[in-house]
Amino acid sequence: MNPSLTLYYTPGTCALAVRIALEEANAPYRLERVDFASQQQRTPEYLAINPKGRVPALVTEQGVLTEAPALLAYVAQRFADARLAPTDLFGLARLMEFNSYLSSTVHINHAHRPRAGRWADDAEAQAAMQQKVPANMTENFSYIEHHYLNGPWVLGDDYSVCDAYLFTMSGWLKSDGVDIAQFPKVHDHHRRMSERAAVQRALA
Amino acid sequence: MNPSLTLYYTPGTCALAVRIALEEANAPYRLERVDFASQQQRTPEYLAINPKGRVPALVTEQGVLTEAPALLAYVAQRFADARLAPTDLFGLARLMEFNSYLSSTVHINHAHRPRAGRWADDAEAQAAMQQKVPANMTENFSYIEHHYLNGPWVLGDDYSVCDAYLFTMSGWLKSDGVDIAQFPKVHDHHRRMSERAAVQRALA
Ligand SMILES: N[C@@H](CCC(=O)N[C@@H](CS)C(=O)NCC(=O)O)C(=O)O
Ligand SMILES: N[C@@H](CCC(=O)N[C@@H](CS)C(=O)NCC(=O)O)C(=O)O
Repeated sequence: MNPSLTLYYTPGTCALAVRIALEEANAPYRLERVDFASQQQRTPEYLAINPKGRVPALVTEQGVLTEAPALLAYVAQRFADARLAPTDLFGLARLMEFNSYLSSTVHINHAHRPRAGRWADDAEAQAAMQQKVPANMTENFSYIEHHYLNGPWVLGDDYSVCDAYLFTMSGWLKSDGVDIAQFPKVHDHHRRMSERAAVQRALA
Repeated sequence: MNPSLTLYYTPGTCALAVRIALEEANAPYRLERVDFASQQQRTPEYLAINPKGRVPALVTEQGVLTEAPALLAYVAQRFADARLAPTDLFGLARLMEFNSYLSSTVHINHAHRPRAGRWADDAEAQAAMQQKVPANMTENFSYIEHHYLNGPWVLGDDYSVCDAYLFTMSGWLKSDGVDIAQFPKVHDHHRRMSERAAVQRALA
């Protein structure tokens, strides 16, 4: 087996969702760790792979792909036998809707805690942003609790890459000062996800 | 013609991208204006359509869809004859990558000017965020200038929904205090887009 895919990955980040998807698909891939502690994401070597200086990045035979929602859809469609995405137009749009919401709203609200410096230089302003993170994350997860998970999985009856992405972000709630138990469906989903073999391999 | 699609729309917002895509596809659709001046997006009537209180929202025969990247992909795939998206796996992933970047990074950096209150309650903190908007938008558009538009369109030779989305956001640069002329390819793209019949209909 000579893996044609390489995932640039840092533990604890949104790249976990893509790693879970690759594991669920039994995809052949190689893992490259990017060390945030030494700021490896800002080295010329890594910027040559992803000029945005972020993870995840997936190197394919045709070039590098970035942005978690794009990678999740790509993995699901490339390894279609694993049935990680609906195949009908509306179902696929619901998948993209959920993943877009996580990346453009939930991930961003979370990032205002560890990465407040992206949006203001001033230390007091950063502290003001960090203070609002629990309220924003609570609002976002209430929305998810009430409008998805109408069944065991995010999209209802069928497991999809959305579940890997939600698991990743619901895993951030504790560090954001939000009690996951407020959201019974999200909480149960997190517990069931953590029992899956693919998730355990991805966390190993 | 009895349109089965309804686009909830506010002029000047990211919903413009979806309207352009519908026009490019010659899709039958109805437009519903959401009036931000009177905060219509927060009325119970609108929240019944999109509980997130945002535009765009697209009502379809199967239910409501939200999130610009999901709507753009849905329109492109539903009206496939209009060729608004690549059909190969990697090409489609590049489209999703670009649209995800616009929604999760560029749109967000822009939103820190008009919507700073989402991320901090304090007026001084909001001012500190607003101050950083031009630098962040400049960085994002430099990235776009250098890593996309390798051809007349965002994805190269072929027009796609990415072009409608980029046009929408490059149209915000002026109000964000950034001179689009710094980015020759983006600038030229904006000019060529504004000459397209579909874009002129969408702006009408
Ligand atoms: N919109 C991107 C965001 C990627 C992103 O922000 N990744 C974070 C980790 S969760 C990162 O690489 N941060 C490193 C840094 O900010 O230096 C996506 O969804 O993939
Ligand atoms: N992630 C969403 C964002 C939608 C969004 O924020 N829309 C703005 C207009 S560009 C809005 O409706 N703002 C109304 C408000 O914040 O009250 C998407 O990409 O569709």
